[in-house]
Amino acid sequence: MSASLHTLSNGVRVVVDPMPSLETAALGVWAHAGSVDEREDEHGIAHLLEHMAFKGTATRTARAIAEEIEAVGGHLNAATSHQRTGYYARILKDDVALALDIIADILFAPRFDAGELAKEQEVVVQEIGEAADTPDDVVFDMLMARAWGDHPLARPILGTPRSVRAQDPQSLRGFMERCYRPADLVVAVAGNADAEAFLPLAERYFGALEPAPARARPAAPVFHSGLSHDPRPIEQTHLAFAFPGYAATHELAFAARLYADALGGGMSSRLFQSIREERGLAYSVYAFADAYERCGLVGAYAGAASDQIGEIARLLRRDMEAAADGMTRAEIDRARALLRASLMMGLENPASRIDSAAGQLFIWGRLLAPEEIIARLDAVSPDDVRRCAEHALSGPCAVAMVGPGDAASLSAVFAQAARG
Amino acid sequence: MSASLHTLSNGVRVVVDPMPSLETAALGVWAHAGSVDEREDEHGIAHLLEHMAFKGTATRTARAIAEEIEAVGGHLNAATSHQRTGYYARILKDDVALALDIIADILFAPRFDAGELAKEQEVVVQEIGEAADTPDDVVFDMLMARAWGDHPLARPILGTPRSVRAQDPQSLRGFMERCYRPADLVVAVAGNADAEAFLPLAERYFGALEPAPARARPAAPVFHSGLSHDPRPIEQTHLAFAFPGYAATHELAFAARLYADALGGGMSSRLFQSIREERGLAYSVYAFADAYERCGLVGAYAGAASDQIGEIARLLRRDMEAAADGMTRAEIDRARALLRASLMMGLENPASRIDSAAGQLFIWGRLLAPEEIIARLDAVSPDDVRRCAEHALSGPCAVAMVGPGDAASLSAVFAQAARG
Repeated sequence: MSASLHTLSNGVRVVVDPMPSLETAALGVWAHAGSVDEREDEHGIAHLLEHMAFKGTATRTARAIAEEIEAVGGHLNAATSHQRTGYYARILKDDVALALDIIADILFAPRFDAGELAKEQEVVVQEIGEAADTPDDVVFDMLMARAWGDHPLARPILGTPRSVRAQDPQSLRGFMERCYRPADLVVAVAGNADAEAFLPLAERYFGALEPAPARARPAAPVFHSGLSHDPRPIEQTHLAFAFPGYAATHELAFAARLYADALGGGMSSRLFQSIREERGLAYSVYAFADAYERCGLVGAYAGAASDQIGEIARLLRRDMEAAADGMTRAEIDRARALLRASLMMGLENPASRIDSAAGQLFIWGRLLAPEEIIARLDAVSPDDVRRCAEHALSGPCAVAMVGPGDAASLSAVFAQAARG
Repeated sequence: MSASLHTLSNGVRVVVDPMPSLETAALGVWAHAGSVDEREDEHGIAHLLEHMAFKGTATRTARAIAEEIEAVGGHLNAATSHQRTGYYARILKDDVALALDIIADILFAPRFDAGELAKEQEVVVQEIGEAADTPDDVVFDMLMARAWGDHPLARPILGTPRSVRAQDPQSLRGFMERCYRPADLVVAVAGNADAEAFLPLAERYFGALEPAPARARPAAPVFHSGLSHDPRPIEQTHLAFAFPGYAATHELAFAARLYADALGGGMSSRLFQSIREERGLAYSVYAFADAYERCGLVGAYAGAASDQIGEIARLLRRDMEAAADGMTRAEIDRARALLRASLMMGLENPASRIDSAAGQLFIWGRLLAPEEIIARLDAVSPDDVRRCAEHALSGPCAVAMVGPGDAASLSAVFAQAARG
């Protein structure tokens, strides 16, 4: 593995991953802070904070931030997930120091001007509106809400118009002080960059932060079953359902991923073959194993004709159960080969490398060499896959549906969910 | 430039673009055939044909195709646009020959089984349903329909449920024979591959095709103005409008792209600053210069609150007009730097390299070295940008709107369109 990990004296972790054949670099700073870290009165604040970072600092206006990075052809972006927030730049090799200067500035000297905040709250309200008009976004937000009850993981990352408008400069500063401590931060660069040049820069921008005790991670959520239905009059009906899965560091997490991929990952997977190739019932159909820090989900999704949704639910559940018993070594090997090849392709992309590094540090507390990931995949046996499939299917089921399909048509398939 | 172009005796063009530092490769075969090549009774056939390629050959079932490529971790995919259709594989370096064997097989020995076709037609009908529920897809389909009248460029690539169900194995074979001739095909590989190994493979799979006279490209379409409105009751309203632009090989095509990018590309662009940063009116807002083979569009898009759409239209048009006169060299230079950096980043991705190569061969008839593209960008002057902005704004305007916004609120802004 070429990536190296360095920890500053205040706890900030720095990853340098040289790819000397490139002419470009990817740089990012991640905070181990996402929507799960929000208090109830802070719903949407992790994402709003990410937006406000670009709205001006002590020395740069929003326009100056944009003009300065784009003058050198750099792209600056950010993303907020349930468990972390990333600010990153794609740049040419000579512009790493400039990009780090800008990202450090927006993180450590944000202005949080009240007038700018009022405008950005309306931008986020429009982003919420866009998501509300995207049925396959909505169905997964509903599934999370159904599965995780009153835990913050159940709430949409974007917040609601009301919760976003309720934030003020003080609440933003409060969240930032609580969740952006040195021990919560990862700075990572990959591409045409090296440790000799980058570590002094990282020390200059991040070394002076006051150390603070590590923050406790949110408690593990409890899984809830049940059915949620939004019967909006659209063309298709979207169905997603899930059973309890495994946290990312669970010994069966890799097995769960292989189960989901063999069940409904590639074109050769059972769901693709059964629902799309053999019956022509859906264009989009897949299975998933989502692994969070303290919990996980194993489930499936399809978007299909509304009058077929009961039949699709029956087939998805039938295929999931059949796969629990009868998954062959060849099917598992194909899923494994696809994951291994994706890993190799990801290694050729600097943005993908730094994103993986940040995720590994937050989840595992260390970097995982590609060889270790491959060894963990290789170690998964058909029996491991069967165990995690049985674990999932023995549990309760959360179901979400968006579109005019008949919820009653699901009740035989998800009897337990319908009772939940 | 490391990419080399070779033409087989029957006219098939082969591009080999070695990236020896990679462990993977990207391979693709493109036909210079898309929805613009369809006759009226063939609407949707280019895309349906792309789907049917994966549904079985003389010697492989659909399942065998999927299993064979995924057993080595390869990803096989395809895409149909207005002007071309691509079939491509992302693979590890040792699997280039296998991937080429599979792609050649699905292209030259497709089975077009009637039962498989009947099922795949329903899959495409579901894909059409998914697009119909995606407002920003719908608004651009409506804009194309409005702008290009009865030319095939005006029609959605996916077709309609009726037009897709009307196809049969014979119509698929007819389209393929007409549009997939050797002179219409490009085979391209980039990544860990070299000409010495690849050219004999390309000759083996593509060299035996019967040569055929080059096909005439479809006539240039005529631009139409006017307003189309789908008032569906969704959260946001989506607005897209366009003026006549330039074909890809027009001397002002690069200037039009810089105008659109400086107007509404990056975060520092006028529209992003004016609509989003200064007023908080939209989350998604941008300008575009779409360059087709025989025509082009220059326009803008925003998704926003429905009661603001008239104001947004006014601002978009005002900013477009102000930019025609007052675009500074610094703004153009930023757009240029962004395009140049995107080009550099694309060169580090084998899939992006082969896709660009195919596009260049179909549009320019040759490969463009990165240095040539950069020189063409560098040669664009503020006066060129002003000329193409004035050309666009002096023309008629096509407008499309999806959502509950009031169409009458646009009439003052697009008076000409409303009369169209």
